[in-house]
Amino acid sequence: MSVDLAFDEQELLPAVAQDAESGDVLMLAYVSEEAVARSRETGYAHYYSRSREELWKKGGSSGHTQEIEEIRVDCDGDAILYLVEQAGGACHTGYDTCFHRTLDGDIVGEQVFDPEEIYE
Amino acid sequence: MSVDLAFDEQELLPAVAQDAESGDVLMLAYVSEEAVARSRETGYAHYYSRSREELWKKGGSSGHTQEIEEIRVDCDGDAILYLVEQAGGACHTGYDTCFHRTLDGDIVGEQVFDPEEIYE
Repeated sequence: MSVDLAFDEQELLPAVAQDAESGDVLMLAYVSEEAVARSRETGYAHYYSRSREELWKKGGSSGHTQEIEEIRVDCDGDAILYLVEQAGGACHTGYDTCFHRTLDGDIVGEQVFDPEEIYE
Repeated sequence: MSVDLAFDEQELLPAVAQDAESGDVLMLAYVSEEAVARSRETGYAHYYSRSREELWKKGGSSGHTQEIEEIRVDCDGDAILYLVEQAGGACHTGYDTCFHRTLDGDIVGEQVFDPEEIYE
């Protein structure tokens, strides 16, 4: 049995990626039904880019993939949680997590790669 | 300094609540600018209900409040993370977390209260 998902009017819903080992919340992005299906089929996290309007595999160009350990669904079925093994760093800025700043602007994450070496 | 937040066209953005101690991702809801401000002022997580179209304090009726340890912002400023101390359980179903099911329908969370005793 697969839980029914409640996609919004854009046929998307938010997906949170969490490091399965450290528990760090890595990023929040959006998924389409196809992105969820591709994640299940391939075992690697896929999302849907609202700006580029396309399915994307996390780490497809950077190599910083997210191997999926489990996909969880919230009580309303309108948000999902990817428990992942993150290769490299989750954030395009080079930090381990996209949530590397406090609301006050303090840096709490760790820079784990140089984005200029990864993204051209 | 406070980081600029990128609210969407509904003047909302998604907020993830994470248990600061266990690291469990508890829930995903939405916040308005006012909800974030109230969370900072009071030290307790506030959200904006898209269905009821109103600001709400988590645990306002159930007592299952979320005391905020830290608020983090993602790289794009369009999602925030509340690190909280959760009283009772986060989910209205009685589970510790709203993400208590896998996509396959297996229960992975723990029932920590009886919702019929809490919500009338």
